Amino acid sequence: MPPTITAFESSPDRGRGQARDMRVRWAFEEVGQPYDVRLVSFAAMKEPTHRARHPFGQIPTYEDGDLTLFESGAIVLHIAERHDGLLPKDANARVRAIAWMFAALSTVEPPIVELTMAMLFERDKSWYAERLPMLQERVRVRLGELSRHISDADWLDGAFGAGDLMMVTVLRRLNTSGLLDEYPGIAAYVARGEARPAFRRAFDAQLAVFKAASQS
Amino acid sequence: MPPTITAFESSPDRGRGQARDMRVRWAFEEVGQPYDVRLVSFAAMKEPTHRARHPFGQIPTYEDGDLTLFESGAIVLHIAERHDGLLPKDANARVRAIAWMFAALSTVEPPIVELTMAMLFERDKSWYAERLPMLQERVRVRLGELSRHISDADWLDGAFGAGDLMMVTVLRRLNTSGLLDEYPGIAAYVARGEARPAFRRAFDAQLAVFKAASQS
Repeated sequence: MPPTITAFESSPDRGRGQARDMRVRWAFEEVGQPYDVRLVSFAAMKEPTHRARHPFGQIPTYEDGDLTLFESGAIVLHIAERHDGLLPKDANARVRAIAWMFAALSTVEPPIVELTMAMLFERDKSWYAERLPMLQERVRVRLGELSRHISDADWLDGAFGAGDLMMVTVLRRLNTSGLLDEYPGIAAYVARGEARPAFRRAFDAQLAVFKAASQS
Repeated sequence: MPPTITAFESSPDRGRGQARDMRVRWAFEEVGQPYDVRLVSFAAMKEPTHRARHPFGQIPTYEDGDLTLFESGAIVLHIAERHDGLLPKDANARVRAIAWMFAALSTVEPPIVELTMAMLFERDKSWYAERLPMLQERVRVRLGELSRHISDADWLDGAFGAGDLMMVTVLRRLNTSGLLDEYPGIAAYVARGEARPAFRRAFDAQLAVFKAASQS
């Protein structure tokens, strides 16, 4: 039996692939591992059954035999360790690829989430206009640093791998912010990720879920 | 030669062990691995020499022979994989411990950093009083969920490990927020972590750096 992951029954991003199951779907597609999906509603995510899988009541989770996992970073790392294609063979390069996964999640994603959440939920607040430039500036600092690192390389560190998969999904959250346009090198990096056939298959799979939900 | 890490020449937390080198020091102490420390100034962190180690110009970094690493999560995981004591032997339990590292860094830490940064840098803003309860509430959601998970256990999943090490350092950031007092189970969990001899040794080592810097 293939592993089973969970995803939103009806994704709040309307199928744009911003939910965190996208990372796991993409990883499965890169390594050629079939998977099953169990859809959960927002209400069911907070119920004991789902909390037994994910103490913080979120998606995605991963179940394979007697192993149950949560956290997209941990799930992608687990997939990458079990299959060829997402981590280099060389020991040092492997550890560096994992470092880029952590960098995507702990250094680059937090200011991006802070900005995009404010754009969604604080737009009508009195402070929005004054805080927005501050939040954008924090993201720009990271984009500038990342842009200098990537320079004219295709990927973060040698061949495409789990670090790139994570970083591209994190950067895609900026799609509606306008900030990616200021960093053509980063925009091209994200586009390279999105052009991978495995990304397209994963994207289409999550979009199909949204379309089915919106027609029912 | 032991591995070399970098740490703040003069820590902005005045030796309270909130800087991210603390996590790496603690991991070294848990596994009994000696290490060297290279202190860097805020100016030096943004120079090309340090950026070659850490593209985002932060601490800590890790150097061991021809391997250079950044991101505290990746460094702690690397130490945990190379030495006994921070990851279980059982394959599934090992993967779950790594999931807790990711949970600490991607699910629990971001709202905590957002709150503590606002408490430091937005206290004089017109919106501070209105935004503060919202930021506190986001942290409370995570603390409540974590509290239910820990329940009356000592650690997150079986014996103490890398996931606990990460989670305790993340929760310690709330020391001055008053929020830990609302969750006695979490406060006791953090105290259990801080009571470990390896934590004390790591804490004393980073405090000694701050004391030496403030006397010079």
